[in-house]
Amino acid sequence: MYIPKIYRIEDQELMKEIISENGFALLISDKEKLCATHSMFLLNETEEGFYLETHISRGNFQAKVLKDGDEVLCDFLGAHSYISSSWYDHKNVSTWNYEAVQIRGKIRLMTDDELYEHLRKLTFKYEKAQKCPMLVENMGDEYVRKEMKGAFGINVFPTEIHIASKLSQNRDEVNAERIISNLMESDDADSKKIAEKMKNSREL
Amino acid sequence: MYIPKIYRIEDQELMKEIISENGFALLISDKEKLCATHSMFLLNETEEGFYLETHISRGNFQAKVLKDGDEVLCDFLGAHSYISSSWYDHKNVSTWNYEAVQIRGKIRLMTDDELYEHLRKLTFKYEKAQKCPMLVENMGDEYVRKEMKGAFGINVFPTEIHIASKLSQNRDEVNAERIISNLMESDDADSKKIAEKMKNSREL
Repeated sequence: MYIPKIYRIEDQELMKEIISENGFALLISDKEKLCATHSMFLLNETEEGFYLETHISRGNFQAKVLKDGDEVLCDFLGAHSYISSSWYDHKNVSTWNYEAVQIRGKIRLMTDDELYEHLRKLTFKYEKAQKCPMLVENMGDEYVRKEMKGAFGINVFPTEIHIASKLSQNRDEVNAERIISNLMESDDADSKKIAEKMKNSREL
Repeated sequence: MYIPKIYRIEDQELMKEIISENGFALLISDKEKLCATHSMFLLNETEEGFYLETHISRGNFQAKVLKDGDEVLCDFLGAHSYISSSWYDHKNVSTWNYEAVQIRGKIRLMTDDELYEHLRKLTFKYEKAQKCPMLVENMGDEYVRKEMKGAFGINVFPTEIHIASKLSQNRDEVNAERIISNLMESDDADSKKIAEKMKNSREL
């Protein structure tokens, strides 16, 4: 991902937020051929930093070829919105504002116990908000171990981290306010989110 | 992208809809290294079928290495939503429903005139809904040609098309209705969209 300097962020808290809120992300690899799979990711913090966890179907080509040490790229796209140059007070080209994280890393295949723990945490993340949460702990060990046979779990250890926060940093205050007020008029949740993020980043 | 048979779709109209509605998509390549860039895509229909158009910054690594004939993978993620197994009337694991298109293809670098036409069409697509559309035609030829110097335009000619529509096709009518009613309760626009798509696909 090419990130011009003004949109490049080092903030690890923002990175964790983007990954957590956009956990249905893309696992990209090029072992034998270019492949990409939409899958559910978790970020696991450790004393040394963090790694990502995900699982895909054993029927997936990536599950057949990926081995310990292979490189993958994980792409998390956060809020994004078209920015019309008709909102500016001067002539310019339109663009797209967005937040995104890309993690390049080396994989390590999960052991059965790691996969169990991954599914337990992943299920808890999304089930805790449900009326009657269906937790892995309550499914019965035998049932979960049987279901696990279809899943291929991997950990991704980061070698490169890229965080993009493209929020019209190249615009002055007058134009930023015009962009924000136009985004706020939209029915689209992502447009409102981008407006909020622009406001917060400029303290408008 | 691995698509189990029940979620695999051949419907070219659905493909065009997903690409058009999710035009801020991912350009993936592995020339020299695995890279992915979020960029704006258009689908261009021709007598023989279609091709994709997009442009990225000339500062992008992909712009420095990609040449005519190189392979890329373009990923368009449509509506998507977590599906809680707590909504089912039986024990099962949770999942994610989604629609997505992946186009594998060979690229051809745009000529200056093709890039101009691409930017004109792209701008029109998003500007036509604005109060005071800022069209390329009204920006002045000299200005547009100057701005174009920073852009690297490519056409992608498909060699493989994958369309995924994962809408709980493996669930019976009772459970599908339970999923739909839970999704409709959500504040999330994508969850409601998935519910509508499930309804339409089953004529519920």
